[in-house]
Amino acid sequence: MAPAPSADTLGTSAARARSAVLEEQIREDPGRFRMLTGDRPTGRLHLGHYFGTLHNRVRLQDLGVETYVIIADYQVLTDRDVADTLTEHVEELVLDYLAIGVDPERSTIFTHSAIPALNQLMLPFLSLVSVAELSRNPTVKDEIAHSRQSAVSGLMFTYPVHQAADILFCKGNLVPVGQDQLPHLEITRTIARRFNDRYGNGGTVFPEPDALLSRAPLLLGTDGTKMSKSRRNAVALAADADETARLLKAAKTDSERHITYDPAGRPEVSSLLLLAALCQNRTPEEVADDIGSAGAAALKKTVTEAVNEYLAPLRARRAEYAQDRAYLHRTLREGNERARAVAETTLAQVRTAMKNHY
Amino acid sequence: MAPAPSADTLGTSAARARSAVLEEQIREDPGRFRMLTGDRPTGRLHLGHYFGTLHNRVRLQDLGVETYVIIADYQVLTDRDVADTLTEHVEELVLDYLAIGVDPERSTIFTHSAIPALNQLMLPFLSLVSVAELSRNPTVKDEIAHSRQSAVSGLMFTYPVHQAADILFCKGNLVPVGQDQLPHLEITRTIARRFNDRYGNGGTVFPEPDALLSRAPLLLGTDGTKMSKSRRNAVALAADADETARLLKAAKTDSERHITYDPAGRPEVSSLLLLAALCQNRTPEEVADDIGSAGAAALKKTVTEAVNEYLAPLRARRAEYAQDRAYLHRTLREGNERARAVAETTLAQVRTAMKNHY
Repeated sequence: MAPAPSADTLGTSAARARSAVLEEQIREDPGRFRMLTGDRPTGRLHLGHYFGTLHNRVRLQDLGVETYVIIADYQVLTDRDVADTLTEHVEELVLDYLAIGVDPERSTIFTHSAIPALNQLMLPFLSLVSVAELSRNPTVKDEIAHSRQSAVSGLMFTYPVHQAADILFCKGNLVPVGQDQLPHLEITRTIARRFNDRYGNGGTVFPEPDALLSRAPLLLGTDGTKMSKSRRNAVALAADADETARLLKAAKTDSERHITYDPAGRPEVSSLLLLAALCQNRTPEEVADDIGSAGAAALKKTVTEAVNEYLAPLRARRAEYAQDRAYLHRTLREGNERARAVAETTLAQVRTAMKNHY
Repeated sequence: MAPAPSADTLGTSAARARSAVLEEQIREDPGRFRMLTGDRPTGRLHLGHYFGTLHNRVRLQDLGVETYVIIADYQVLTDRDVADTLTEHVEELVLDYLAIGVDPERSTIFTHSAIPALNQLMLPFLSLVSVAELSRNPTVKDEIAHSRQSAVSGLMFTYPVHQAADILFCKGNLVPVGQDQLPHLEITRTIARRFNDRYGNGGTVFPEPDALLSRAPLLLGTDGTKMSKSRRNAVALAADADETARLLKAAKTDSERHITYDPAGRPEVSSLLLLAALCQNRTPEEVADDIGSAGAAALKKTVTEAVNEYLAPLRARRAEYAQDRAYLHRTLREGNERARAVAETTLAQVRTAMKNHY
């Protein structure tokens, strides 16, 4: 694992600096890293997910970082709509992964519920954090502030501990995160450190994983708010070209005919420019200059073409994989088998460290 | 399973009435019941444990109730003294079980840490209780009141959920408990009910287990306080006759020469009388009458003889088993295998109910 600075109090700027160092280390020696990423199976992934995190994961995989991708099916338990169509959601997610270039030969895709030895780590880990520490979790504090304590389930309350198990079961030492996830990762680091202190016998059972802060571009939904599946304001990777055109045609813009990139003053227009730019590997300013005074309609046409062109090969791959359910199921089965073997090896080490052999 | 009354609000007296009905049902048809009991491996069991609960468990086993005995090794994680000698504690506990008549052919003795599929039930179960409900747990409230919130670990906070997993993994429907454990069992019943409601598809995945309230006699330690390993005031089952005599000779009594059974007025003397009575299957009043005015020394002699005579065959069996480590280890290995198979069957049903098959 990468040597870590004393990171308990790492703020965002320090995390950013650390991430730059990590990027260099990854390019030099990707074999030192094992990355854990994943998603909750709540529906088709969209462009916000893609440019926010998925693209970056595939980049790291392709650089040679060993990759574990967890489908966090237990984290959607309290969402009844999802629970009823879980199988479908999981399959859609795997299709999205395959389509964007997650390679099952190099990346282990697995479902949380299929790995009992991973889940068992929850118990020793729960003994290493206090209720006071769990209560400080911003997500939980938010939920208590915005609804009521009775709405916070035991599962949500213990979420940072599950996340520690998800990351540490495979001894992941690299976790790409957004800024809001930094506090969660700190709990994982704390748990790893405390476990080593208490049971490590002078050695290291678990690495303290590093956060790789991703520079996610701020893409808005077509209605100018945050992209969200439930708001139907985001282009799904799996959407077809017509669906994409319809959605983008209805996108919110503004009344100024001359198109300029001005994220603060013209957020909706700028988000569309950014999207086109990301798809064409240009700057949003260049895209804006090309459109000039041709207005919002021209902007939408440009964005639609850029998105559809960029996603075309991805969508073609997705359609192919969707025809091959056997491959889909084999991918998941083999991923689960691999994850299970890794989890069992780790659990055996944990048992030895904790003297749980009788 | 036994049909249960609406039991959410069962107080102690109602639980007592229910237990009387259960006792009748057990005698009529023990095959309807599956009992879950167990202990934390914190040291040698003593007479307080024996007459409080162990004796009753063996009675139920011998009546034909299928029995699962969990060695709750994860529940001693936060006790560093125990953790360092865990193997020894677990082996002592198994020896005690064998000595008192727990029969590995009829009872499944297993260690908590060895059953990943049991522990995995924690995750769905955590989603079925709120933080507010967990906070109402009297043990947690006590701990927060008497120390501080930071002293309550995530493991302790979620304890009632682990207990639900311990009981429900084998679909236990009978749990012998003391009065103070009634609230914990209510959470298990709540979790079973909510799981069935949410995922049962009209059927029953988990029984709502019944509490069998045991009429534990109130035995005090030799210093007149609660029996406790750390206070060295309790006769261990594994103690030899001399150790037993020494401990009982030093027992606290009072200055009145005439021996009478008066639990309220003469708690120490009465506790010794009760102990002798339990060993001799007599009433404490009868024991007191026999001693009359012979005083505390005679009382102690009577109690010592009664205890040593009662425990002699048990201790002889224990010594035999202690010679046969292979049998000890096989007992635990086979118990773990059986528990694992049961847990995996249950987890498979849970996965099907929750649509976690992909």
